[in-house]
Order: sequence, then C-alpha cells, then structure tokens
Amino acid sequence: MSEPSSAASRGPRELAAVGFANSGLDEIAGVGADPKRGGYSRHGFDRVELELREWFTEQARRRGLDVRTDRNGNLWAWWGTPGKGAIVTGSHLDSVPGGGAFDGPLGVTSALAAVDLLRDKGFQPVKPLAVLVFAEEEGGRFGVPCLGSRLLAGTIEADKARALTDLDGTTLGDAVRAAGLDPARLGRDDEALATIGTFVELHVEQGRGLIDLGAPVAVAESILAHGRWRLRFTGEGNHAGATLMGDRRDPMLPAAQTVVAVRQAAKAVPQARATVGRVLPVPGGTNVIASTVDMWLDARSPDDAGTRAVVAEIAAAAREAAAAEGCAVEITEESYGDTVVFDTALRDRLAGWLGGVPALPTGAGHDAGVLAARVPTAMLFVRNPTGISHAPAEHAERDDCAAGAVALAEVLERLAG
Amino acid sequence: MSEPSSAASRGPRELAAVGFANSGLDEIAGVGADPKRGGYSRHGFDRVELELREWFTEQARRRGLDVRTDRNGNLWAWWGTPGKGAIVTGSHLDSVPGGGAFDGPLGVTSALAAVDLLRDKGFQPVKPLAVLVFAEEEGGRFGVPCLGSRLLAGTIEADKARALTDLDGTTLGDAVRAAGLDPARLGRDDEALATIGTFVELHVEQGRGLIDLGAPVAVAESILAHGRWRLRFTGEGNHAGATLMGDRRDPMLPAAQTVVAVRQAAKAVPQARATVGRVLPVPGGTNVIASTVDMWLDARSPDDAGTRAVVAEIAAAAREAAAAEGCAVEITEESYGDTVVFDTALRDRLAGWLGGVPALPTGAGHDAGVLAARVPTAMLFVRNPTGISHAPAEHAERDDCAAGAVALAEVLERLAG
Repeated sequence: MSEPSSAASRGPRELAAVGFANSGLDEIAGVGADPKRGGYSRHGFDRVELELREWFTEQARRRGLDVRTDRNGNLWAWWGTPGKGAIVTGSHLDSVPGGGAFDGPLGVTSALAAVDLLRDKGFQPVKPLAVLVFAEEEGGRFGVPCLGSRLLAGTIEADKARALTDLDGTTLGDAVRAAGLDPARLGRDDEALATIGTFVELHVEQGRGLIDLGAPVAVAESILAHGRWRLRFTGEGNHAGATLMGDRRDPMLPAAQTVVAVRQAAKAVPQARATVGRVLPVPGGTNVIASTVDMWLDARSPDDAGTRAVVAEIAAAAREAAAAEGCAVEITEESYGDTVVFDTALRDRLAGWLGGVPALPTGAGHDAGVLAARVPTAMLFVRNPTGISHAPAEHAERDDCAAGAVALAEVLERLAG
Repeated sequence: MSEPSSAASRGPRELAAVGFANSGLDEIAGVGADPKRGGYSRHGFDRVELELREWFTEQARRRGLDVRTDRNGNLWAWWGTPGKGAIVTGSHLDSVPGGGAFDGPLGVTSALAAVDLLRDKGFQPVKPLAVLVFAEEEGGRFGVPCLGSRLLAGTIEADKARALTDLDGTTLGDAVRAAGLDPARLGRDDEALATIGTFVELHVEQGRGLIDLGAPVAVAESILAHGRWRLRFTGEGNHAGATLMGDRRDPMLPAAQTVVAVRQAAKAVPQARATVGRVLPVPGGTNVIASTVDMWLDARSPDDAGTRAVVAEIAAAAREAAAAEGCAVEITEESYGDTVVFDTALRDRLAGWLGGVPALPTGAGHDAGVLAARVPTAMLFVRNPTGISHAPAEHAERDDCAAGAVALAEVLERLAG
C-alpha cells in the first residue's frame, strides 16, 4: 500500500480481483530471516522484533495514527481519539523459531492495508479504531504463548511472567526493561482492555479447511483447549565410553520412550494433538551420557477433559519410564488455555457481511482466543494453499491476502461506522 | 608447583605421602566454568581454550621450556633441543560441554609438575623431553574427537578437517586462522611425529578399575573400538496444534524410537556401549513439529566387529522407524578408530618401574590411542573415586594426583635419562 491513491476509485472486491497488494509483508521480508533453520526467527523483545516494532510504528505514523505502547509492551496505533468501545484489529510480529512469513505479520499488514482502503474511500470511523500488535505471541523466547495478551487480560500472574527466562537466562523483566518498559508495571491492564469494544484478528489459516472448501476467507468458530508442559528427566551424567550399559541412569532413554508414548496418547483421544518439538539434553555432548533432558510437550484437544486425559497418560508413561531407568521426572505446566468458542452472534454477523463465508475451528492458539474471555472477539482466516504453518513453507497467495485485507476493511467499516 | 624448591630434598614417593600438590588445576579452576551446565565448557580454539593455551605457554616459559605450536595447533614445550627420539608427555586442555576439571588438564598439569620434580632433583635428560598439549581432543566443538592428534598422525584428511563446522557454522579452517595458524598447513605432520620416540599420556581414570583394586595409579592396556555417527531424520515441519496426528511426518518419532533401539543393540553385544547424548531438533519450537532431528550416536566395543554390529542394528532400526513415519534418515560416520592395544613391552616396563601397578583397559578414547598406531605409546591412569567422568562430578583426590605426577616423573626419568 505504498500508493493507496491508486485504489481510491475501486470497491473492495474489485480491488481483490485486480490484485490489490498487501505490501507490508514485502517490506519486512528481509527482517529476521534465519539462515540456519530457514524461514524467520523473530522473538519477543529481541533485536529483530524491536526492528519490526519500529517498522510498524513508522508505518502507523505515516498513516497519521497515534502509536502508544501499553504497560505490557503491546503496540496500539489509534485512528481517532483513544477511548471505550473501540474497534481493535491486529495480530503479532514475532514468529516461532524458523517460522513462516504469514503467521502474525499477515494480521498486522492486513490491518494497515484495511486502514488504507477505508481512508481511500473516505470512511470516517464513528467509534475509535486501533491496530494492535501483541508481544511474544508464539512464546518462542519466554515459553508462554500469547504472553502480551495474557498479561493484558490478566490470565498470567505478573510475578510469574517477570520471572520467565529465555535460553540465555535473561528474564522477561530484564528484556522489557531493555526495551524501555518498566517491568513493575507488567500485568493485568483493565484500563487498556476497557477501550476494546470488539477485537478482530485476521490470521493465515493453519490447516486445510479453506482449501477443501475452495474459499479464500473464513471466520473462526473455536480454538482447541491447549497447554504446554516441560518434562525434566534427571539421571546421572557420565562418560559415554567408560560407563557400562548396566551402570547407566541415562535420562535420554525415558525421554525417548515418552516421545513414543506421546504419539500413542494423542491417537487415543478424538481430534487430540500432542507434540514434542523441542528437546534439550544437558550437557549435550556426543560422548557424554546426559545428566538431564528437558523436553516440552504441546497438547491440545477440542475440550479440557480430552487434553487433560492425553497429558495424564503421557505423564504416567514418563514416570514409569523414568523409574525403570533410575531417573526422576518433574512435570511442569507452563501454560494452559481452555477451549475458546468465539462469540456466535458476532461470528454470524461477520460471515453475513462477507457474503456467507464459512466458519472453521482451529487447532492453533491466538491472542484473539485470550481476549475472547474478556471482550467480544472474532477472527478471519485467509487460505493457506498447503495447510503448512510454523515452517518456512507456510504460504498464502497474493490474491487471497488481498481478499483478506478487503474483508477486514469491510468488517471494520461495519463495526466502526 | 608454585614453589618447586620445597620438594627438592625429597624422593617422589615421600612427596606423594606428604601431599605434594599438583597445583596447576587450581590455577585454571576459574577458566571456562559453565554456569548453565555446571563444570567446564572449553572447546578447541574458542576464547576459553585460547586462554588456557596462554596459561600453559606462560607456565612452560617460566620453567625455561621452549614453546612451539605445530601446524595443527598442538603446543609443544621442549626441555632440551627438539629432535628425534624425544620423550613426549601431555594431554589436552579442552573439555566436553559441562565436563569435569580433570579429563585432559590433569595430564598437562602433571607433566609440568613432573618437570618440576625432575628439575628439583637435578635430573638432566639425555634425550629431548617435551610436554605436548593437543587441540580439540573431545570434539566438543567440531565433532571429531582427538582432532589435533588425528591431524598430526594423518588419520583424518586435511580437507575433511578444514571443512568441519561448529554449531555457529564456523569452519575449523576459519577457527585456526583466527588463532593465528595457516589452515592450508593443517594435516599429517611426519616431521613433528618423527621427533616422538615415546609418548606417555597421564589421564584421570574414567571408570572404577582403580577403586576396585585399591590403587592410585595404573598403566593402560587397551582402548575400545570407537566411532561417532550423525543420524539426520527429515520429515515435514508444521504446526503442532493445527496438524492432525494422521497427517504428520514428524522426525522426532523415529529419532525417539532409535534411542530405544540404541539401548537394545548395545546390550546385545558383550562389553559394548552405545549412547545418544546430543539431539538437535530443527527448528526446535515447543509448538512446532520439527522438520529435521539430528542426533549423534557414540558406539564402542572391544573390537571392530562388535562395534560395527551394534551400529548396523541401530541403523536398521532407524531406517525402519523413519520409513514408518514417512521420514528419511541419513547416517554419516563422523569418526572411527579401531581397538588400540598399547605397546605391551613398554606397558610392562612402566608397570615394573612403578612397583608393579595394575594394567587396565579403558572405554574412553585418547590422543595416546591415536598416536599408538605411529609411535610407541603408553598411558598412566589416576584413580577416580566415583568413576564418573565427562560430568562436573568427575574427581581425583589430591594425594592421587600427586602420586600420578610422581609416577609420571619416574617414567620420564627412566625413559629420557
């Protein structure tokens, strides 16, 4: 949208048809590319994410929006006077390690593009309107997903959040201080939350629902009940060559047996998913029996009971495997969120405004899911041609991105007009 | 040995009895401590290992030794004119990640202490004598153990060695250039090797042989056949919540199944050991199905056939598990060394000089094992009260360290006198 005036005389659907470009993704394409993993590594309050925040601030100011950072490091760009009942849209700029270009940034660039589209057609919002960028949505640095929205909504204790550490041992408190925030002010922010009348997040779909339906855009129906657990297996570090097999207490063995149990447990519960994507043996030498192995479990299912059942079965398997090897296992819940069902009436209104687009459930967590417990919330999904997400192959076609931005503009116009 | 003159009037056994201190370990106790893993992380040509090299150089010069760096980054400190038939002793200063204080440094500090003891008693070597510090013995940075001795002896191709990379992507070639060496000159160094008449390495025992025997010092008998393999499992990176269990090609599953197979395969071959101590999922996010999982296998047994049999069974299990998940697996041999039996006549002479100390086999690899194929080589082991090695708990009592240095001095005196 470097030349919004070119779009001035056309209607939103027409713009999508002629390939209206959501060009923000191109502008940040060079920021945070990960040469080792492929894709992008952009994590909360790291150098790369701070650069993206500056980019966003500059883009918002260029559009005459008033940019403010809240107590929890979330960025708000206001069109109109900040106040209660605002229509707020946005997403996040951070990624998983080696993630794709769309998860997060598409919702931010589409929000800016929607503002451009509305400006071009001379729209003046009756309610205040804001574009919101959440901090550390993926939990790629501090382990807790949706950290910015959880802090805002008060679904994580400020003390617990301040003490979260990254792999280098830096606490969230230190990281936000380095970014110019006061760590003492982290935490539930009812004043900021009260300004949100309705929140709408646009996101690339993380699945194949829209491919199967042959549609570019959907509204969200629900989010799975989802948690993260750390399993720490502790044994006895020793020499890989000098220690007889019978003398070992090797935590790698029960960790591996637990990975196998994760697959079995997830398959036993309908629609459940459970994943180990991160394993950290300490000290991590080829010729060293590990002294501890940390591994992280991501488990989800359509409801709380299913998710808890999967995790209980995995925990039992982990304890049994650890005991058989003379190891200990400590299981810590790092985050948990129950099933989210988005506001049905709002969802149906959005679907109607957009010509009857489909409603889809999602297995992925979102800041919108956190906010849904406090304010009316909706989501729009944009088609993903392979369904792959959290990986460099994540994709959305240009025309679908344009259709998404146009749909978001339509929704904002109806809500704020 | 900050005050060698205090030992001048006493015989070696008497010194051990009164607690002669091998104080070099105290001097380097603060260098390279690893706050995350515990113990020490000192790796070839890194900042810490370079600091230890400076410490060694300073210590050697203080003793009037002539310090030279060979083409492969090994440090030689000469007592007398360098030349053929020299008696050479030493070990290494690098560690595994989070390793102990003794594995490596004990052989270096004991060599310096032995020089002090010999000087104190007025000994003048007839043959040239040198203290040798090998580079990157553990392979903790570039993956290949005994890298300095392998390059010296020509048991690794120079081109292959130059191209080895650390986790940051730095090649060995670049690392040695940064340390002031010419990477083009890495490789087999027959001129340096020809100066070694006999090589003796003192090392902390990595096992419980000396505890069971109730003795402080032993000579080495043999080293297991030993290799390292990298197993790279490749699947499809995707979203941990949005991807149905049945749609996954998750390389973590066959990697875990292979860890279980490693234990079974090692138990099936007498005296074999096989270990997975290092696993690296990429991208390594909690909410991300990995796209690849690299894991490293360390496998050893008393003979080549046994080691090969263990690895073949593990490789078959890895291929089967990968295929069942729709993943690929690539298995690369990173290093291999056949069984080493130390020179029997030399070993018996040493044992006799030391009053009939026992001879012990070892499961650990050593630079002495690499040199044994080219020159007469022996090892001395110092008792380890728990048998633990490659871990912060690795230990040797002060009196045993003193007894080791005294024994080494006695051996050097006999060989060089």
